[in-house]
Amino acid sequence: MTDLHPQLQSDCLLIGRFELSHLLLSNDSNYPWFMLVPDRADITEIMELSDIDRNQLWLESHVLSTHIMRQFAGDKLNVAAIGNVVPQLHVHHIVRYRSDVAWPAPVWGVAPASPYSDETLTRRIEQLNAPGLSGFQPI
Amino acid sequence: MTDLHPQLQSDCLLIGRFELSHLLLSNDSNYPWFMLVPDRADITEIMELSDIDRNQLWLESHVLSTHIMRQFAGDKLNVAAIGNVVPQLHVHHIVRYRSDVAWPAPVWGVAPASPYSDETLTRRIEQLNAPGLSGFQPI
Repeated sequence: MTDLHPQLQSDCLLIGRFELSHLLLSNDSNYPWFMLVPDRADITEIMELSDIDRNQLWLESHVLSTHIMRQFAGDKLNVAAIGNVVPQLHVHHIVRYRSDVAWPAPVWGVAPASPYSDETLTRRIEQLNAPGLSGFQPI
Repeated sequence: MTDLHPQLQSDCLLIGRFELSHLLLSNDSNYPWFMLVPDRADITEIMELSDIDRNQLWLESHVLSTHIMRQFAGDKLNVAAIGNVVPQLHVHHIVRYRSDVAWPAPVWGVAPASPYSDETLTRRIEQLNAPGLSGFQPI
């Protein structure tokens, strides 16, 4: 298993994995904010993945997107690979609401992160772990 | 052909198309900033595309990503589907430089758009139209 970048380790919680990617939850309760991190060393750009891995990443993204939009009843999903600060490839999947603190702006740089309490974290992960997240293995 | 959302028409230039997607250039010379807009009606989220269309979108994204990072010699590529304001699905592909006006932040909301002059626009499109952009038809 590839090591997670220290910044991802400090900002996120590792909650499980798909065939290719680790699934992280950003420790910011302002949004249901997940990240797929392909378990491949030294990959910064999506285009650097092999064809097979890239197809698998987008399959995992599709399964995750469908599931979290249903489970968290979002108004919009934001999917993004930015990585200007943390070079290890990570693909954000952020469930957005017209009522959230950053709407309609993208989330970056708008509101300080609001870390989860034990209780809200447990509830978030229980909602994620409902049936339907095909190919996902919780930690 | 699906109509482009009025906001995309006013902020961007339509420069051609792939099999599935229109290719737009954001009228902001701060970055080589392209968008893929699948030619499908009433699609807001990537996950709403059919499996075939989704695979085609990511293939076009891969071809575009590889080409623009080579042609524009970027330090990082940002790939994102946000769409909180403009509901028509559009996938940003933004070539970033450590020297650009927004680095290392994501581009949204950081610097006012800097419209192209005729000369810089012509140069940008010539660089894009170099050989290697497989499946692309310039307008």
